[in-house]
Amino acid sequence: MNGGGKHYRSLWADEAQGAVKFIDQARLPHVFEVATVRTTEEIADAIRTMRVRGAPLIGVAAAFGIAMAVSRDPSDASISDASNKLRVTRPTAVNLAWAIGRMRERLAPTKLSERVVTAWKEAQAIADEDVRLNEAIGKSGLALLEREHQARKRAINILTHCNAGWIATVDWGTVTAPIFMAHQAGIPIHVWVDETRPRNQGLLTAWELAGAGIPHTLVTDNAGGHLMQRGMVDLVLVGADRVTRRGDVCNKIGTYLKAVAARENNVPFYAAVPLPTIDWSVEDALKEIPIEERNGDEVRIVKGLDDSKNFSRVHIAPAATPVANPAFDVTPAKYVTGLITEKGVIRATEKDLLEYWPRTKESKAFLT
Amino acid sequence: MNGGGKHYRSLWADEAQGAVKFIDQARLPHVFEVATVRTTEEIADAIRTMRVRGAPLIGVAAAFGIAMAVSRDPSDASISDASNKLRVTRPTAVNLAWAIGRMRERLAPTKLSERVVTAWKEAQAIADEDVRLNEAIGKSGLALLEREHQARKRAINILTHCNAGWIATVDWGTVTAPIFMAHQAGIPIHVWVDETRPRNQGLLTAWELAGAGIPHTLVTDNAGGHLMQRGMVDLVLVGADRVTRRGDVCNKIGTYLKAVAARENNVPFYAAVPLPTIDWSVEDALKEIPIEERNGDEVRIVKGLDDSKNFSRVHIAPAATPVANPAFDVTPAKYVTGLITEKGVIRATEKDLLEYWPRTKESKAFLT
Repeated sequence: MNGGGKHYRSLWADEAQGAVKFIDQARLPHVFEVATVRTTEEIADAIRTMRVRGAPLIGVAAAFGIAMAVSRDPSDASISDASNKLRVTRPTAVNLAWAIGRMRERLAPTKLSERVVTAWKEAQAIADEDVRLNEAIGKSGLALLEREHQARKRAINILTHCNAGWIATVDWGTVTAPIFMAHQAGIPIHVWVDETRPRNQGLLTAWELAGAGIPHTLVTDNAGGHLMQRGMVDLVLVGADRVTRRGDVCNKIGTYLKAVAARENNVPFYAAVPLPTIDWSVEDALKEIPIEERNGDEVRIVKGLDDSKNFSRVHIAPAATPVANPAFDVTPAKYVTGLITEKGVIRATEKDLLEYWPRTKESKAFLT
Repeated sequence: MNGGGKHYRSLWADEAQGAVKFIDQARLPHVFEVATVRTTEEIADAIRTMRVRGAPLIGVAAAFGIAMAVSRDPSDASISDASNKLRVTRPTAVNLAWAIGRMRERLAPTKLSERVVTAWKEAQAIADEDVRLNEAIGKSGLALLEREHQARKRAINILTHCNAGWIATVDWGTVTAPIFMAHQAGIPIHVWVDETRPRNQGLLTAWELAGAGIPHTLVTDNAGGHLMQRGMVDLVLVGADRVTRRGDVCNKIGTYLKAVAARENNVPFYAAVPLPTIDWSVEDALKEIPIEERNGDEVRIVKGLDDSKNFSRVHIAPAATPVANPAFDVTPAKYVTGLITEKGVIRATEKDLLEYWPRTKESKAFLT
């Protein structure tokens, strides 16, 4: 999509240099800057520090992380080592493990001499597929927004939490693809953007929407219930870091509060998710998905620009203040009106989802 | 309570100088500092900018604001002018209008020559009553926490939102009085403290709890639902800026989300409120209570200390980002397990509340 005035993907390969380039999310929305990494360790660090973030994008980044390892040393030991380094960066999103599994499955039967070419090709295939997935999700969601607009004959008010925008994927975004397409189709849209503490990824969403000229309003995470209660939200639309086969949605901390308030106010709640985000090995998200606990300084320290527009930070709490910082929560399937996928809008039930369970050989990757 | 190492009230009169002193909340939790104001305009400004805040405390501050006006000019016109200046500072909390009404009722039949003495005395009476109210609320809440502890035989986990601590009242606090008393009585307590964006008043609560040596953990506003879902919250305890005769609770934005999640997870939800916080003239809070919309820069700009511990601020969003910043929301009575008042714990129903409706002559103040 449009970033810094021209068309960009969020992350792309510079295979000739054995490098990967990405839009550095640590500097957005303030500065648009492209970063270059050349090693598995560097991309792993970028994932951990969230300079590259978003469940779909970290899967793609990890795939290229494997490719960079193979470029240096194509042995099984090297691939195994790289997999371990990448897998531990973030525990919650399934896409990371899924992409690593797919790379390993592709490389295992490949001759050492062919592994470099195969690895970069497979990582690129995962990246290209991500773009197609998001485009297809956009079409599924567009149909839904068209219906909502037809029913109301006025601008549709969408509330979103965190950032599942194009910057969180290779392109389009899961949540933003339907919004971009609806906007392009002339359907009036207004988006309430949760700032999404502690890391304020909502500001990335606001930046994306501003870039596309889509009306939006930034609100604190506290405001959404009030807005729903007053009839100011027509639907809630979020991404997901992992969805269970039962339809439980694991997403950014705070999603659950919005889902509960949505049901209470008869506001439909949708998660936009590519099917690779479904972890077919997990049924009960509350019991089975590890919730990442991040550093308390993310809560104590807020980053931004100072009055002179230099990057800066303020401590809102003393270092001694005890902090808990769970990064995700679980929205049980009963609160989920539907999952917007590349195959259409699916009800969040085990029965409906199992129709999409890939039973081909490749599907083993889902289970690793 | 304990502030800066000795016992303080949050606000007190220096009648000899015709001045009012208060702990400057704009500088907490970072710096403990006492501010002095000498005019109605100065105290009105301190209320508006939230250097003095908390529904009970701004009522007391407004009462002294009237007294300062009377010291300069005891005429009806002067009192009327001061009332207007003070009333418009914050629209949501009822305590402000209640205290102004009470001052006017007391001063109207008083001879001009006696008004200065009467005004300061009445304002002081309101301040002293606030302390007694909070102490009585503490005893009501203590009994409740004792029962919870008896039932569980372990530390009670309380989640609170915003700050209804001693600093938001003259002393004790509505929410913190039961917590301080329980702690003093040896009942183990742990408090989850919502940071409470956009102004992060949760940090005031964390500061108060740290000052009293009470275990607590700061969390983002997004985390509470997740904590309740995992059984980590035994009860939610908040203050209120206005309660209707029907039991609807108007409190800091985000309270409603916690109340809905609490009911969903069978977690009791209590509001600690002195009866003067009940607006007997209002039934339906959603329709009748004005919700203050504050400046969007409160969301765009975060204040704190820089790495050198100087007061500083960062812009998390560009100035052009559209922002909505409603400061309060309404929790309908059906989500409220009980109101912890100076007269005991009352069910949040019109029938139960009306038993406490003051029918004496003075009660007219409630209806102005």
